[in-house]
Amino acid sequence: MTAASAPMPAMQIQCLPERSWPLRLGLLGGGQLAKMLAQAASQLGCEVWIAEKESDCPAAAVAARTWVAAWDDLPTLLEFARACDVVSLENEFVPVESLEAMEQQGCTVRPGSNTFRRVRDKWAQKQTLAQAGLPVPTFAEVNGPEDVLAFARIHGWPVLLKARCHGYDGKGNATVHSPEELEPAWQRLGGPRGRRLFVEAFCRFERELAVMVTRAADGRCAVYPVVETVQRNHVCHIVTAPAPVDASVAHRADDIARAAIECIDGVGSFGVELFLEPDGRLWINELAPRVHNSGHYTIEACECSQFENHVRAVLGWPLGSPRMRTPAAAMVNLLGRCQGSGQPIGLEKALAVPGVHVHIYGKKTCAPGRKMGHVTALAETVEEALARAKQAAEAITFGEPTISCQG
Amino acid sequence: MTAASAPMPAMQIQCLPERSWPLRLGLLGGGQLAKMLAQAASQLGCEVWIAEKESDCPAAAVAARTWVAAWDDLPTLLEFARACDVVSLENEFVPVESLEAMEQQGCTVRPGSNTFRRVRDKWAQKQTLAQAGLPVPTFAEVNGPEDVLAFARIHGWPVLLKARCHGYDGKGNATVHSPEELEPAWQRLGGPRGRRLFVEAFCRFERELAVMVTRAADGRCAVYPVVETVQRNHVCHIVTAPAPVDASVAHRADDIARAAIECIDGVGSFGVELFLEPDGRLWINELAPRVHNSGHYTIEACECSQFENHVRAVLGWPLGSPRMRTPAAAMVNLLGRCQGSGQPIGLEKALAVPGVHVHIYGKKTCAPGRKMGHVTALAETVEEALARAKQAAEAITFGEPTISCQG
Repeated sequence: MTAASAPMPAMQIQCLPERSWPLRLGLLGGGQLAKMLAQAASQLGCEVWIAEKESDCPAAAVAARTWVAAWDDLPTLLEFARACDVVSLENEFVPVESLEAMEQQGCTVRPGSNTFRRVRDKWAQKQTLAQAGLPVPTFAEVNGPEDVLAFARIHGWPVLLKARCHGYDGKGNATVHSPEELEPAWQRLGGPRGRRLFVEAFCRFERELAVMVTRAADGRCAVYPVVETVQRNHVCHIVTAPAPVDASVAHRADDIARAAIECIDGVGSFGVELFLEPDGRLWINELAPRVHNSGHYTIEACECSQFENHVRAVLGWPLGSPRMRTPAAAMVNLLGRCQGSGQPIGLEKALAVPGVHVHIYGKKTCAPGRKMGHVTALAETVEEALARAKQAAEAITFGEPTISCQG
Repeated sequence: MTAASAPMPAMQIQCLPERSWPLRLGLLGGGQLAKMLAQAASQLGCEVWIAEKESDCPAAAVAARTWVAAWDDLPTLLEFARACDVVSLENEFVPVESLEAMEQQGCTVRPGSNTFRRVRDKWAQKQTLAQAGLPVPTFAEVNGPEDVLAFARIHGWPVLLKARCHGYDGKGNATVHSPEELEPAWQRLGGPRGRRLFVEAFCRFERELAVMVTRAADGRCAVYPVVETVQRNHVCHIVTAPAPVDASVAHRADDIARAAIECIDGVGSFGVELFLEPDGRLWINELAPRVHNSGHYTIEACECSQFENHVRAVLGWPLGSPRMRTPAAAMVNLLGRCQGSGQPIGLEKALAVPGVHVHIYGKKTCAPGRKMGHVTALAETVEEALARAKQAAEAITFGEPTISCQG
C-alpha cells in the first residue's frame, strides 16, 4: 500500500505535434465503447476515425470514417495511425507489437504500448501490481495441470485458472473446485494447445467493486466513486453507484485504484475491478486498459463522463470532475437472450419509466449474453435507481429469435 | 388565453409502418441542431441520415450517411425521404411544397407540412396564434412604405418591419424608429424586390424569455422550464435557467407555450420566444418549428433533453421528463468574431473551468456572429452558472483570422 500514498512523480508531458483542424482521434475497435467515446469526442469538435474488422460496427454510425482492418494487418493499421493525431483503443485485442510499430513511426498512442504490455497479459498485470505493493490475490505461472495441483495444495480449493491473454467477460477464466474439474478446465482454456495459463487463489469476496480512473499525461487523476458490480454468468450485469461501503473502504478503494493506474503509467480512462472481503480487505481483481462497463453510469450521473475524460486525457486536455451529480445511480446491461436480429423490442415501454436513460448500441445481431445496450437510472437512493433501471431493462428484448432460447 | 386552458383534444395517433431495423431518421439540414439531434438518436439505436447542401456540415461527422441536395432538388429529397422511416428537420429553409410532396408519397414527416405552413411564414404564424386567442403584438400586412406609416400613426414609433419568410437570427427584421429610417429598412428587407413584409408594434419588454415544448403525436406535451435569453446583435447569446420571474409568470409562460404548439398541431420540439413586459404581461415573439438555441442547456440540465425528446416525439415514443436536474444552468454561445478557419483556440482553458460542458460544432470556417459552439455550466445559482459559462466561453476563439476583425 505504500505505492498508493507515495507522492505522485512529476512527469514530463508529451507535447502533441502542431495539429491540423479538425483534430482527428483514431480508435482501434468499433464496439459500444468506441461508439460512446466517439460521441464524447464529437461534442468537443474532434473528428473520430474507427478501425475495426467489420464496417458494420456500432461506432461506424457515429464516426466520420471507418477503416476495415484485421488486428494483425499492420500496414493498414499503420496507415490509419499516421492519418490520426492521436490513436486510442477500446479493447485488448490489438497486438502490443502493432502499438509499438505505430509509436516507432512517431504516432501518439494513448494508452501507450508500455501500459498495454503491462495490462494485456494478465499474469504480467498481476506481477506489475504486486511489485508496486498493491493487493492482488496470490497467483502463479503454471506449465501443466500438476502445477495447479501443487498450488491448490498450498492455497486450497477452489482455484481460478486463467488464460494470460484475450480473456474478457469470463471468457478465458475457470473456477476449478476440485482435482476432478481440473482436466476439463485445462482443456477448455487451451492449455494443451499451448495457450499460456496461470492460477490464482480464490477470493471469498462479499462484494465486487470497481473504480474508474482517468489519468492525464501529466499524472493528474480523476478518480470516480467506487461502485458495486454484479455479474451474471461472468458478464457485468448491474452497477450501482455509490457502492454500499463505509467511507474507509471507499477511501482505500480510491487509493488502490489510483496507485494501480500510476504503476502501469496509464493515460486515459481505466477500469479497476476489486474484491471486498467480509473483513474489509480489498484485492485488485483485474484492470481494464480502457473505458469500462462499470463506468457507463458516469454519462448521466457524473459531471464529466469516463468517455469525455478519456478523450480529454489522450488529447492532453485538462480532466473534468468525476463527482456525481445525483445521490444515486444504477446501470443495468441489456444482455442478449437469443440468437437473432439486433432489433430492440419494447423500447417504448422502457422509455416510459421515469428517470431512465436508454442506450441501444445498434448491433445488427443478438446472441445470448451479448451486450446489446444498457439502461441508467438516477434517483435519490440506490434502491430506487436500481428498481427503475431494472424495470426499463426488463421491458426490452432483442429481435425475433432464429433459434429457441431460454428466457 | 382560452385556448391555453381548453382541454386537449383527443388525437388519432398516426401509426408508423412496420419498420426495418435499424430505424432510420432522416434530417433535412446538417447544422449543429442536426448534429445534436443525431447524437440523441444514435444513443437510442437509430440510424441518422442527413440531407444538406454541403457534405462538409457539422452533422455529417456523426451521421451514418449524408446526402447532398439543394432545398429545391425535389427528386433527390423525395428519394431521401422514401429511404427513411421518419423525416424531420432542423431549419426553416425547406420549402413547404417539398414536405407536402414527401407526405403525398406516404412518407412520415414530423413536424408535418400542416405545422410548417403555419410557422414558416411569420405573418401566417401570427395569424394562427392570434386566432387561437394567444397574446401576440399587434401586426399588419404591408404592401408599401405608406402602410407602415399608417400603422405607426396608430401604434407609434418604433415599429418592427419583418420579412414573412426566411428570417432567423435577426436577419429579415428591422426596428424602424422614425419615418426617415423606413425607406432604407424597406430597401434592405427586399420590399422593392417583391419580398413580402409585415409590420409589428414594438414591445417595450423587460426581459426576453423562451420555453421549449416537445409535443408527441398523441398531444401529450413536455414543457421545459421558462428561461431568460439575452441576444447580442439579434443572435441568441446567453440563456439562463430558470428565468428570474415569479411563479405566476412562469405558469402563464408554460400555458401560452403549450397552447401555441397545440394550435399549430406541432409534433416534435419547438421553441417559443416570449417578451415579458414590466407589468408582467407576456407576448409571443416568435415560434421556431424545431429544436432551438434556447434549449441547448437541456442536454446537461434536464432529465431528457430537447433533442432526445424531439427524437422520441417524431418516432412516436413516450416523452421524457423536461424537469431540471440542477438548481441552475447557464448557456453561452460561442459566436465567431472574425472570418477565418473554424479551429477552436483556447479549448483547454475552457475545459479547466469547473462544471462546464463545452460543445464545439465542428464548422470548418468562422464568420462574425456565426454560431461555432456553446458552453453550458451547471451550478447552485444562476449567477454562479453564468459566471462559469462566461469564463469558459471567453477562453475560446476560433481560427487564425484571414481579415482583421474587432474583438
